[in-house]
Amino acid sequence: MIHDNNHNRYSLYKSRIERQLSRLIERKTPVCVYEPIDYVLKAGGKRVRAVLTLLSCEAVGGTQRRALPAACAIEILHNFTLVHDDVMDNSPLRRGRATVHTKWDTNVAILSGDELVAYAYQSLLKTKSSSFLALMTSFTNAFIEVCEGQGFDKEYERRSDVTLDEYLLMIEKKTARVISAACELGAIAGNGTRREIQALRTFGEAIGMAFQIQDDVLDITATEQELGKPIGGDVMEGKKTYLLLRALQRATPSQRTVLERVVHKHNIHKRMVQQVLHIYEETGALDDARYRVIDYTSVAQNALKQLQFGKSVAMLRWLSQRLLERNS
Amino acid sequence: MIHDNNHNRYSLYKSRIERQLSRLIERKTPVCVYEPIDYVLKAGGKRVRAVLTLLSCEAVGGTQRRALPAACAIEILHNFTLVHDDVMDNSPLRRGRATVHTKWDTNVAILSGDELVAYAYQSLLKTKSSSFLALMTSFTNAFIEVCEGQGFDKEYERRSDVTLDEYLLMIEKKTARVISAACELGAIAGNGTRREIQALRTFGEAIGMAFQIQDDVLDITATEQELGKPIGGDVMEGKKTYLLLRALQRATPSQRTVLERVVHKHNIHKRMVQQVLHIYEETGALDDARYRVIDYTSVAQNALKQLQFGKSVAMLRWLSQRLLERNS
Repeated sequence: MIHDNNHNRYSLYKSRIERQLSRLIERKTPVCVYEPIDYVLKAGGKRVRAVLTLLSCEAVGGTQRRALPAACAIEILHNFTLVHDDVMDNSPLRRGRATVHTKWDTNVAILSGDELVAYAYQSLLKTKSSSFLALMTSFTNAFIEVCEGQGFDKEYERRSDVTLDEYLLMIEKKTARVISAACELGAIAGNGTRREIQALRTFGEAIGMAFQIQDDVLDITATEQELGKPIGGDVMEGKKTYLLLRALQRATPSQRTVLERVVHKHNIHKRMVQQVLHIYEETGALDDARYRVIDYTSVAQNALKQLQFGKSVAMLRWLSQRLLERNS
Repeated sequence: MIHDNNHNRYSLYKSRIERQLSRLIERKTPVCVYEPIDYVLKAGGKRVRAVLTLLSCEAVGGTQRRALPAACAIEILHNFTLVHDDVMDNSPLRRGRATVHTKWDTNVAILSGDELVAYAYQSLLKTKSSSFLALMTSFTNAFIEVCEGQGFDKEYERRSDVTLDEYLLMIEKKTARVISAACELGAIAGNGTRREIQALRTFGEAIGMAFQIQDDVLDITATEQELGKPIGGDVMEGKKTYLLLRALQRATPSQRTVLERVVHKHNIHKRMVQQVLHIYEETGALDDARYRVIDYTSVAQNALKQLQFGKSVAMLRWLSQRLLERNS
């Protein structure tokens, strides 16, 4: 019952964001800028970052309305990163549709991505808050770090000596930082106390880390049906995931030989996926990753204890639990 | 003597900006982000936008120091546009050095360009001003429009029916808007009155327009020595400049045949440059463009009459005159 209520409430928040997003940008020309922006912002997605902003605002006693411009700003910033990352990663598809540089071209993707950043700031500027400087600073710092995260990610693709600590720093910047900023912005917009703002930032960062490591785990443990794509994609691409880097720390010489092939993207076959999965199990890397996800989730849920506004806090807790228990 | 004083003063302003720029960014990793940023920000250039911000602040009675973060922000925004535009235009050189995507690669240029925007905002956030929202809004609007300007520019490359009005709108957004924002930001940071802010914005916009049309004129009337590159580059590239679009309005059928070859980038030879120059002279397009430059410059100089602080206003006037009289 609580579950259903939360689901329904989530849908309400999401549609509020969709509505606001659809109103934000009125211009139509140049077409090569505004058509792709429209395409991107209407692509849907869970809008989880924006929902987190709204909930964080309520969790410190603010109204949803106060946080709506900041929620859209963070959602637009996230979409900007997707458009530019897809160019850099040469990805043809996003949410089952052609990416911007595939549907149009690279120039259009660069330019419409840039314009998305400008509109993210424009949306943020609509926030009515006495802590305007804090809002802008939080947002800008997240923007700086998400670019750094992408930079590390690209550098790690070419390196074969990436450490687990480097990986954790990278996902902190690339994935967790925008999520923690989403929560922080909501708390600032809702005039939260310093302690509340810090608590929500910690919550966001911890669920961001949990989310990414859970992603690494699901990529090789989910079923193809759950995932909507072949499992073991990370192995096939030679991605340096939490699992791979942790397993390397504990591998026997013969296990290491297999893992090194993934690291060096050398001679990777589809049948290696099962072999690598077994190594992840045997070395304990898989258990360790699952433990980390649970651990980050409990850090997140503990942070919520600093907050008072029951209903929204309960929903933040529910969200963090859902991320933990998802299959895809 | 005044001339020399202004020159010396300009150099002082410029070195202050260079110093501030070199202090702004302390981080070094990821290297693929911070090396190109360092390369770009140390490339020099006239820093005219940033100097305009400082002078505009002084022209409303503010101190230089108040406008320094905004001056750097606008300079960084300008450099971001250069990095991304160079990718889109496939330009190998900028200020005599390899462009970022040539020296590194396209991904590095996209990502370090993005990070430049983040640092532009971070710099702007350092401004101590009671009109913080106005500053952020002015900056963000300029950012939105400069992207639009680039979008129109790219669209016009593929169209053969671009009108002169469309061209003027494009250069207003792509070139003049950042210059007018540079002046506006300085006036806001210096706590100028609404009238003073508007006057400086008008000044910036007018010199921006004059600057771009003067560029179009010099490309075909300067000597190769003055220009530092072969003259008539715009003709060779089939660029739809003020001169070309104005000449098309007035061309005889036989002149039109020549100009249409430029528009359609069809069979353009080096010896056509002189032929096209004659058409620009015969149709009066060249005189008209020169008149426009003078006209915009006088709009700019008239706007300065709204301002009181003599020394800086005189220097703004001197700068607008220099742009008018330059040979390259």
